[in-house]
Amino acid sequence: MIYSIIGTGGIGGYYGGRLAQAGHNVHFLLHSDYEHVKQHGLRVDSVNGDFHLANPNIYNDAKKMPVSDVVVVCLKTTNNHLLPELLQTVADEHTIVILIQNGIGVEEDAQNMLPELQLVAGLAFICTAKVAPGHINHQCYGQINLGNYSCNNETLLQQIAEDFTQAGIPAAIVDYKEARWKKAVWNMPFNGMTVALNTQTDILLKNPATRQLIREQMMEIVNAAKHQGINGVDEAFVDKMISMTDEMTPYSPSMKLDYDFHRPMEINYIYSRPLKIARSAGMPMPKLEMLEAELRFLEDNHY
Amino acid sequence: MIYSIIGTGGIGGYYGGRLAQAGHNVHFLLHSDYEHVKQHGLRVDSVNGDFHLANPNIYNDAKKMPVSDVVVVCLKTTNNHLLPELLQTVADEHTIVILIQNGIGVEEDAQNMLPELQLVAGLAFICTAKVAPGHINHQCYGQINLGNYSCNNETLLQQIAEDFTQAGIPAAIVDYKEARWKKAVWNMPFNGMTVALNTQTDILLKNPATRQLIREQMMEIVNAAKHQGINGVDEAFVDKMISMTDEMTPYSPSMKLDYDFHRPMEINYIYSRPLKIARSAGMPMPKLEMLEAELRFLEDNHY
Repeated sequence: MIYSIIGTGGIGGYYGGRLAQAGHNVHFLLHSDYEHVKQHGLRVDSVNGDFHLANPNIYNDAKKMPVSDVVVVCLKTTNNHLLPELLQTVADEHTIVILIQNGIGVEEDAQNMLPELQLVAGLAFICTAKVAPGHINHQCYGQINLGNYSCNNETLLQQIAEDFTQAGIPAAIVDYKEARWKKAVWNMPFNGMTVALNTQTDILLKNPATRQLIREQMMEIVNAAKHQGINGVDEAFVDKMISMTDEMTPYSPSMKLDYDFHRPMEINYIYSRPLKIARSAGMPMPKLEMLEAELRFLEDNHY
Repeated sequence: MIYSIIGTGGIGGYYGGRLAQAGHNVHFLLHSDYEHVKQHGLRVDSVNGDFHLANPNIYNDAKKMPVSDVVVVCLKTTNNHLLPELLQTVADEHTIVILIQNGIGVEEDAQNMLPELQLVAGLAFICTAKVAPGHINHQCYGQINLGNYSCNNETLLQQIAEDFTQAGIPAAIVDYKEARWKKAVWNMPFNGMTVALNTQTDILLKNPATRQLIREQMMEIVNAAKHQGINGVDEAFVDKMISMTDEMTPYSPSMKLDYDFHRPMEINYIYSRPLKIARSAGMPMPKLEMLEAELRFLEDNHY
């Protein structure tokens, strides 16, 4: 089995690193960190145990990578216009392409660009970040849920879940739509609110006003999902997400880091697409609509 | 006719100053600026013409002020717990007390504290601020609408409107509830949004996302007012408020100044009370509820 990781940041570096450490044949695409990792290897600090890959298989050009059984895409969705070029040779119609990306609508757009590919959504419940070139810091959690979008090889998908789990990454195969909307329950409130109020998850939950607001925003997603007939996104899941976040280390979600480092924010897939779907389904999410507007403003008026 | 102004800031200094300049018998209560105004008088820079009152009747103790025909309260609502003490001798049951204050619920609470007094709401459409001790800067507009809450002397109220108008302050007597909810149409979006996004009115309206958000927030107020049977708060009024603000000098509303100078914000009367009324009436205002939560958070986490 050949695994290729497209984008070796916090997510790709950690998951790919775990697979490689477990003995799998893993190939990493790097961009700015290529020379550094070539010299120093890939370092992963993890709550589940630190490790170092001295000589990982690394590439600075996707076209040099082998045709792979599994391609794990760990790019920001703001780079998804690059997918046709990046996946041109590393993936073919037998490859399973797992998009570990934020938001809703990602697979639909990728499939339109690449109709031949077998796509799977990867929903990572993990706190991890690249803190320096070739240096990943995994702070907490790590589970990945796999939602089948257009994969017709369920045996291979099952094999992938087993490989992940054996490598120390608990993986489960779940319903695609349910998984994407469940992920949104955490992503939509916390990514944007930490940017809008320039804060972290723990401070948002300590304040009674924003704790309630976060809950109300989560319930907007529950209601929008329910209205579309998506099961499993319910109030109990909201409670679980809030208590999970209560127990987490104070955390800056990826959008907060993007904003702070003046990188583009993933407003389109994290907000605009699900908001549009909910509105079309007749169950708008007004508080999250307001958050989207604030983020659009902040993107244009960064101070 | 004796006029007394309780609170000589941007509003009280400008309106009281205009009345005094027109020859009315006006008495001003001052706090921190008392000594300065005693020595240097009151300076008003105004788009309608600058003026200076060399020797206004000023007081640093409300109990030394004469019993007045008209008392104009220009305090922040965050000081309204002081009203019983401040009005104890300057107002009696014949006095008309005009509360030029922000928000909804102000008269109800004041009346509960002071059941004998005749209360009128004063809705000021004005851009004005105290820029230095005894120095008022009036930037634009200036109209005042008077909404009768519990005044039984309509002749005197009419006289007041005429005095104001003759002094250069266009004044009209309007329906109380309609007036308070109309004022909220501007106040609720702009006060909070300039704080939440650390910006000014013009920048909010230039950005397409926040321009639409402001409009949606205004429409929440229109719908909540309509649902309570309050007339005149309609989409045409929303259009008028937006185009009026488009034409204004870039402006920081009072709540933005309060926040920037670490003074308490008037969250209770500008947000919590109308939000509660709308919710009880079965027509909640979700985007403004979110704004309230953001303001509560920012008040507790000022950076």
